[in-house]
Amino acid sequence: MSSQSFAATIEKLKAADREIVLLSHSSALLSWDQETYMPRRAIDERSAQLSLLQGLIHQRITAEDNRRMLDRLGCSADNPGGDASLADDDRAFLRQYQRRYQRAARLPQELVVKLAESTSRSQAIWAEARAADDYASFAPHLTTLLDLLLEVSDRIGYTEHPYDALLDQYEPFMLTSEVDRVFAELRAELVPLVKAIGAAPQVDAALLRREYPVQQQAAFGATVMQALGYDLERGRLDTSAHPFTTTLGAHDVRITTRYDPHFFNGAIFGTIHEVGHALYELGIDEKYHGSLLAEGTSLGIHESQSRMWENMVGRSRHFWHHFYPQLARLFPAALVDVNPESFYRAINRVEPSLIRVEADEVTYGLHIVLRFELEKALLSRTMTVAELPEAWRAGSRRLLGIEPRSDAEGVLQDIHWSMGGIGYFPTYALGNLYAAQFMRAIEAELPSLWDDVQRGEFAPLLNWLRVNVHAHGRARTAQELCSSITGSELSAAPFMDYLRAKYGDIYGLR
Amino acid sequence: MSSQSFAATIEKLKAADREIVLLSHSSALLSWDQETYMPRRAIDERSAQLSLLQGLIHQRITAEDNRRMLDRLGCSADNPGGDASLADDDRAFLRQYQRRYQRAARLPQELVVKLAESTSRSQAIWAEARAADDYASFAPHLTTLLDLLLEVSDRIGYTEHPYDALLDQYEPFMLTSEVDRVFAELRAELVPLVKAIGAAPQVDAALLRREYPVQQQAAFGATVMQALGYDLERGRLDTSAHPFTTTLGAHDVRITTRYDPHFFNGAIFGTIHEVGHALYELGIDEKYHGSLLAEGTSLGIHESQSRMWENMVGRSRHFWHHFYPQLARLFPAALVDVNPESFYRAINRVEPSLIRVEADEVTYGLHIVLRFELEKALLSRTMTVAELPEAWRAGSRRLLGIEPRSDAEGVLQDIHWSMGGIGYFPTYALGNLYAAQFMRAIEAELPSLWDDVQRGEFAPLLNWLRVNVHAHGRARTAQELCSSITGSELSAAPFMDYLRAKYGDIYGLR
Repeated sequence: MSSQSFAATIEKLKAADREIVLLSHSSALLSWDQETYMPRRAIDERSAQLSLLQGLIHQRITAEDNRRMLDRLGCSADNPGGDASLADDDRAFLRQYQRRYQRAARLPQELVVKLAESTSRSQAIWAEARAADDYASFAPHLTTLLDLLLEVSDRIGYTEHPYDALLDQYEPFMLTSEVDRVFAELRAELVPLVKAIGAAPQVDAALLRREYPVQQQAAFGATVMQALGYDLERGRLDTSAHPFTTTLGAHDVRITTRYDPHFFNGAIFGTIHEVGHALYELGIDEKYHGSLLAEGTSLGIHESQSRMWENMVGRSRHFWHHFYPQLARLFPAALVDVNPESFYRAINRVEPSLIRVEADEVTYGLHIVLRFELEKALLSRTMTVAELPEAWRAGSRRLLGIEPRSDAEGVLQDIHWSMGGIGYFPTYALGNLYAAQFMRAIEAELPSLWDDVQRGEFAPLLNWLRVNVHAHGRARTAQELCSSITGSELSAAPFMDYLRAKYGDIYGLR
Repeated sequence: MSSQSFAATIEKLKAADREIVLLSHSSALLSWDQETYMPRRAIDERSAQLSLLQGLIHQRITAEDNRRMLDRLGCSADNPGGDASLADDDRAFLRQYQRRYQRAARLPQELVVKLAESTSRSQAIWAEARAADDYASFAPHLTTLLDLLLEVSDRIGYTEHPYDALLDQYEPFMLTSEVDRVFAELRAELVPLVKAIGAAPQVDAALLRREYPVQQQAAFGATVMQALGYDLERGRLDTSAHPFTTTLGAHDVRITTRYDPHFFNGAIFGTIHEVGHALYELGIDEKYHGSLLAEGTSLGIHESQSRMWENMVGRSRHFWHHFYPQLARLFPAALVDVNPESFYRAINRVEPSLIRVEADEVTYGLHIVLRFELEKALLSRTMTVAELPEAWRAGSRRLLGIEPRSDAEGVLQDIHWSMGGIGYFPTYALGNLYAAQFMRAIEAELPSLWDDVQRGEFAPLLNWLRVNVHAHGRARTAQELCSSITGSELSAAPFMDYLRAKYGDIYGLR
């Protein structure tokens, strides 16, 4: 085939992709509005609008034409980038196009519909089951979902473990065995660290539960957001029940947060977290705009950005050295007897707790390890759905040293499984690992990094991330980024080093 | 054809229509967001999203299948409701479906594209021309637009006047000759009334230009909105540069307003006006929800609702008898030396002015008559685009007794022509006529109407409008509504009677 004919075929695929992206962003606006401003009674029609758009997107993704064109370009499961003579960016485009087509085309319409119906029903059942602390009423639905997810896995295909095919939706190209490897490291070192911290004198964090008026929280959040480089000509901050980031266009990446007047951490660290996600999507190279490459390359890498800004930067002494004086002026009553050091220690208090979303930076990983182990056991059929609550309690005891008194604060706490989101949890912890490993490279390349942060200068860090991570969008995989940035494969060691240094200092460990 | 087979075909059309409505509402959300919350730099991609959705909607409207199915049901231009054996609601549905299909199918794609390009260019040129007071730079674009609109008119077809085909987009089934008839009445009576008012001692309205803090304006607007029956579980109020109402679903009809801290009228009467539009769309019978019948039946009827609430109710003594005490509490400084009667007179001050959107209820109609006469002359080629500015000045002198000193405040003041919106203006004045004519019937059926208003009770009026106007959506045409409600065809007499009574009182005319 001539290179001219290659070019024409690629242009056709790019035009098709462009429409898919435009429809996806339109659909994302429908969802954003649903979470922020939509009047309550509009919900049924909004669901119908979303499902029509999702249907149109699915049609385009799985259109027969795609297979023919991809074949013509030499794309296959083994060689998704197509003919070796193609330019790198075209091969990167085709790799993702082929991947998206393949995953969608392998799932029969009937299975997709069954899964959608089942997850929609399960979510409602789960919400009731959690409220009533009644695992038994949720169990049969989880069983059905598991069967369907195993069928998905079979249809999509995997080489080592049925979990691979599910994980791959969220962390493309990563195998379960790799998660096994890094989580084993993580677990082996986290458990003793948490124990050591537990044996040290506890930090007092009561000051965070004083009165923090919402308006001042919002003003402070706006200051921080701007300082970090989030551009309100290309985004906006609203409030919603659950904070999220959504991309509605290359120049339209919005975030949300929520305010609690009696707890300081939620809004501000939530905002910094979402800003981290948004900066990633806003930093993608213009040449990829409007295409499927203009997205974060994996949820793990996405979390590496949000968690780096939230935890490594936003919960650092340097950060608060700069911002604490402003904070003290905004909340004179709440912070009257507080100094920067006691504030820093409070926001970094570590304590094993039952609820994942309230966990600190240290214990968080153990919540994820627990879920990953249970998900794998369910998918390999080495554990039944009936055995899950007891396995949860045992795992929680083993990993965190505490045990939920009810299923509501145990196995029923997260919405993910009811949404069919098995394979999603590991990405949260992978984000921490990527972040720490990247940070090592950054500190080596930017020796003045922490001095900059201490002066409220975040541009050097943001620019580094733009060039090395953000710009590439999905043109590089998570593995490729990790290897190009750090020269090695993913490891838990940098993260553990970071935790040991930071918390060794705070808790006076040797 | 069997009635069973009829039913199946109608179901197919309804399913197709359902998707068109869902896509239209999705597209409307993209537009709403663009005017309210969208970050500035998102505009280019938003345009691309909108144009893709518009294209999908157009494809569905003009799909070949439609013609075949409509034929099978006996629908034609002469008998748009189809076979006489069909149920009334089905015939009402088919009438609108056939009409929408016919109008779209008669316009070749090339013409639609040319018109879209031309109006997009013309709007930018018009904005510059108005800013620079340079009609000459806009004239050639208006000439091009006129040629295209005449081609549209030819393609769509008309019996009496090329203007018919354009007017029909906004005021379906109304002929230019009918507008001629009622506007002749209107003009003949308005001109002397305006003169008589001009000869009477003028009302002082300076109090409206005092300081009205925006937050209190918003609080007052919220109170009024709720009292009128606008349900925030099915709508919301936001701010935008130009106030509008938009329907995003049967239970999602949103309005916007804008605030000027130094002018009272804008926000509150703007809000009441848009509430009037919103109540109409929210009052449509559930059986029509999700179909093309769930819309206002014409722009004239739509304006009858917004103007009835804004002017006949919102600018009445009874209305302010109820609300003035609250107003005085909210704006103690601005209203310190004002009493309800002087306030009532101020908000009803009449004075011929150059700018339509700032005109009072009495002179407003003359602005519309001027535009209608010029539009007709342009379309019948009895006047050239070059002659338009002078014709504007002469018409303004003749109708309003004043003349613009520049084209910027004359012929260039409105955006409509640059958007190809010839035929739109008459609906504004038709709204006033419909409103006054309906109000006669309402007053006869609800003798306690004004006592209710005076007590802040708006439910009786709203319920009457729901049953007699709103519920029918597009299942009844404007003419059918007018005839079923008032027993006669549209006339300017009730509106003139209303104006003479109200302003005769305010200005002490005999």
